[in-house]
Amino acid sequence: MSIKRVIVVAGGTVASRFLQEHIQEEDILIGADHGVVALLEAGFIPHIAIGDFDTTGKENMEAWKSLGIEIIPLSIMKDVTDSHAALEHALTYIPEEVHIYGAFGGARMDHTLANIGLLEWLNNHDVKGIMQDETNRVQFIKGPAKVTLTKSEYHYISVLPVSKYLEKVTTYGLVYPLQEKDVCRGETLGISNEISDRTAMITIENGVGLIIESKDR
Amino acid sequence: MSIKRVIVVAGGTVASRFLQEHIQEEDILIGADHGVVALLEAGFIPHIAIGDFDTTGKENMEAWKSLGIEIIPLSIMKDVTDSHAALEHALTYIPEEVHIYGAFGGARMDHTLANIGLLEWLNNHDVKGIMQDETNRVQFIKGPAKVTLTKSEYHYISVLPVSKYLEKVTTYGLVYPLQEKDVCRGETLGISNEISDRTAMITIENGVGLIIESKDR
Repeated sequence: MSIKRVIVVAGGTVASRFLQEHIQEEDILIGADHGVVALLEAGFIPHIAIGDFDTTGKENMEAWKSLGIEIIPLSIMKDVTDSHAALEHALTYIPEEVHIYGAFGGARMDHTLANIGLLEWLNNHDVKGIMQDETNRVQFIKGPAKVTLTKSEYHYISVLPVSKYLEKVTTYGLVYPLQEKDVCRGETLGISNEISDRTAMITIENGVGLIIESKDR
Repeated sequence: MSIKRVIVVAGGTVASRFLQEHIQEEDILIGADHGVVALLEAGFIPHIAIGDFDTTGKENMEAWKSLGIEIIPLSIMKDVTDSHAALEHALTYIPEEVHIYGAFGGARMDHTLANIGLLEWLNNHDVKGIMQDETNRVQFIKGPAKVTLTKSEYHYISVLPVSKYLEKVTTYGLVYPLQEKDVCRGETLGISNEISDRTAMITIENGVGLIIESKDR
């Protein structure tokens, strides 16, 4: 039987309340680096703790082990980030979806952008990834594809090319409709649309990109 | 005579102290949306205020005009973001460089990512763009290219592909050297390197990407 959801909590800022609202009892929980602390502070015991623990300190590890957490230590000299290693481990559960929290709360843009890049890495491994915080829900899209969105608190909808073009983007149920429009990377045409109906749909014919649902703080 | 630097202050969070440390007397100052307020709060009178001013309120405009600020109002129904319109205007000065502040301080990832995408748009218009805040300095790179970096407070160096591959990346003066290495988008190999010497150099043969200098907060 495959696991439905693996939750990876990365090292960025993530509120305990957000974790409490989004984690379900049957989820597999992986903490990457400081994400272990975020999970524990929110009242969850992660199944796996993975990282070089350069920021959390190695002295916590014995306590974590006594809680039954499996610790996967990484060398600080590694070729992948803690988040990336956590996703590699997440795939061993053969999940339907991987949800990633704490991926863009930090101040460092290299971490944030590399984390968002991991959504494509997951897609290359045929796993759906969702990266989410209190103001954003981000997913990767690869054409030809169709994404259905339900009206939610994240009411802005942005379509952002990762490849040079997203070809023939068509939207249904958005305030500013696009009709077979090629959206070019570096342009800002696809930013800050809004859902007008209860559900919206975005289709793209070719290219890869991000669908970002967001709200003002 | 061409203008050396245009500064665009976008609508994200930006500290007054940061603006005071980075703005020079001869700079042309453009405030995009809430960036106008950030400039004024830091003691600078922008030359241009551009935006739909949906967040700052239109009632400020008369006061701004009396300060000699040229106001370029945008429709809320526009095809580009305020930041994008500000950069379009920046190009009319034929600047050598455009520095963009307040581009990734906000909570909304669509704004942050679209702003970073504008570095490529500037590059397509043959203008060097630098996007910076207190923890990050981001520039766009298009191969074949060579970037020289000077050791600074932003001591982490990350090389992030935007195209599917950055081909034959070679680094000099970094702690974890790369030698004609193809870096694949979605992998995290190029993240969190560090300058070992006083200066470092990164060369890439083909592809487009970002060079991010950063520091922990």
